[in-house]
Amino acid sequence: MQVVSTVKEVRDIVAGWRKEGKTVGFVPTMGYLHEGHGSLISKAVEQNDKAVVSIFVNPMQFGPTEDLESYPRDLEKDSKFCESLGADLIFHPEPEEMYHDGFSSFVDMTVLTEELCGLSRPVHFRGVCTVVSKLFNIVQPDRAYFGQKDAQQLAVIKHMVDDLNMNVEVIGCPIIREEDGLAKSSRNTYLSAEERKAALILSKTIFMGQKMVEEGETDAVKLVEAMKKNIETEPLAKIDYVKAVDGLTMQQVTELKSPALVAMAVYIGKTRLIDNFMI
Amino acid sequence: MQVVSTVKEVRDIVAGWRKEGKTVGFVPTMGYLHEGHGSLISKAVEQNDKAVVSIFVNPMQFGPTEDLESYPRDLEKDSKFCESLGADLIFHPEPEEMYHDGFSSFVDMTVLTEELCGLSRPVHFRGVCTVVSKLFNIVQPDRAYFGQKDAQQLAVIKHMVDDLNMNVEVIGCPIIREEDGLAKSSRNTYLSAEERKAALILSKTIFMGQKMVEEGETDAVKLVEAMKKNIETEPLAKIDYVKAVDGLTMQQVTELKSPALVAMAVYIGKTRLIDNFMI
Repeated sequence: MQVVSTVKEVRDIVAGWRKEGKTVGFVPTMGYLHEGHGSLISKAVEQNDKAVVSIFVNPMQFGPTEDLESYPRDLEKDSKFCESLGADLIFHPEPEEMYHDGFSSFVDMTVLTEELCGLSRPVHFRGVCTVVSKLFNIVQPDRAYFGQKDAQQLAVIKHMVDDLNMNVEVIGCPIIREEDGLAKSSRNTYLSAEERKAALILSKTIFMGQKMVEEGETDAVKLVEAMKKNIETEPLAKIDYVKAVDGLTMQQVTELKSPALVAMAVYIGKTRLIDNFMI
Repeated sequence: MQVVSTVKEVRDIVAGWRKEGKTVGFVPTMGYLHEGHGSLISKAVEQNDKAVVSIFVNPMQFGPTEDLESYPRDLEKDSKFCESLGADLIFHPEPEEMYHDGFSSFVDMTVLTEELCGLSRPVHFRGVCTVVSKLFNIVQPDRAYFGQKDAQQLAVIKHMVDDLNMNVEVIGCPIIREEDGLAKSSRNTYLSAEERKAALILSKTIFMGQKMVEEGETDAVKLVEAMKKNIETEPLAKIDYVKAVDGLTMQQVTELKSPALVAMAVYIGKTRLIDNFMI
């Protein structure tokens, strides 16, 4: 496995693979990898001749008051993890390699970015769409892998690829959870022991919502109210949003029918965590 | 030469060429082709194994009060012209093929789009960047050709390609003029006989400005004032802008030094024409 930091190195390596007729899978990440990323990397390794992982904490997708500086980083551990899963290349650029002086272009989206995380984090999806467009152009993969945990991000990327005729297949992969249910996230590392326990309210509420739907609830307002009420039983939890939206357009719905997404963002102390389930 | 109207047809044809190791040149146009486009197509034919021309009047780059509906179209004449120059493929999509229901992504740029045509036509460059991104993703050319007549467009496209790591070489080609000096444009067809004469004030003023610079003028304000004064001698002409800007950032300059762009947009009757020269 190689670890490179420049666009040119990636292009040269991938061009070599292309000459040999190899297919390329790609997993864009912000690093501090956990088993959620691991499941994406394993799928990329399994479905393609070569697998590329990018590790880049993208400044453009963080708001001014967000956790860009404190976002956890551990390249050495990440490299070992990627190698153990069979990845072929890590692309780990510095911010200056991605955003040179005078950088002024961006990719953005209306509609799908107006609810959920897009509402709470106004510059977030512009940053995500722009960096993913760049990474797709650099790596030019056949397939790219994203986690269902960031359900809105997955929907936005799929829509962007379709709208802009990008020549890549976007594959969503299921949420990976800790044994006690908490969705795996690099941000879980921010939690104190007490907060770690309190954070279980997210997955517990997700499971509760899933059960309500399985048992026949079709009223989105009732479902969301019940879920909010459940979260409010946890004193350390502060709701950012709990919403039921159309699974494709990300617009709020009143009736629960497939494809729908029930998603939440909840602060546990200062840490903002997300979780969701699809109908 | 083939003429196709779907993204899939273009992809299949280009994929076939790629398998044979052919290089691909691309000329995006809005059709109603003239010798200005011809010079781009000829260069694409000359520098690549295969040459693709797109003909698409892109609704997204027209403002609500602009000439989208009346923009001239003649696919049959355009096809013959492209074939005579040795092009291999015309892509002529309907708007619905490019912008399906629910289309909501866009590519845009700050800084370079704030002056000149970007100021007069606020949605214009968002439309241009978006459609060119789409066309680049569909055709995946090695080289793409744009006229220097739309100098700001050329600068914007070059900057977008660089910012977003698009894997294409952007080549600018000189302005092609009528014998009497008027820059070739599909919009010249709007001009009455009287307006056609009056339109010469653009090229005459460009040549005057070039001469002033050759003779040592370095004061951008003086140059622009002299050019404006010259245009105002023509009763049918109404200035949209005459400006001297940095050739890369498109920001206004006070001193004329390379690379600079001196550009104008002038209404002749209801027809908005542009012309420019580089320093």
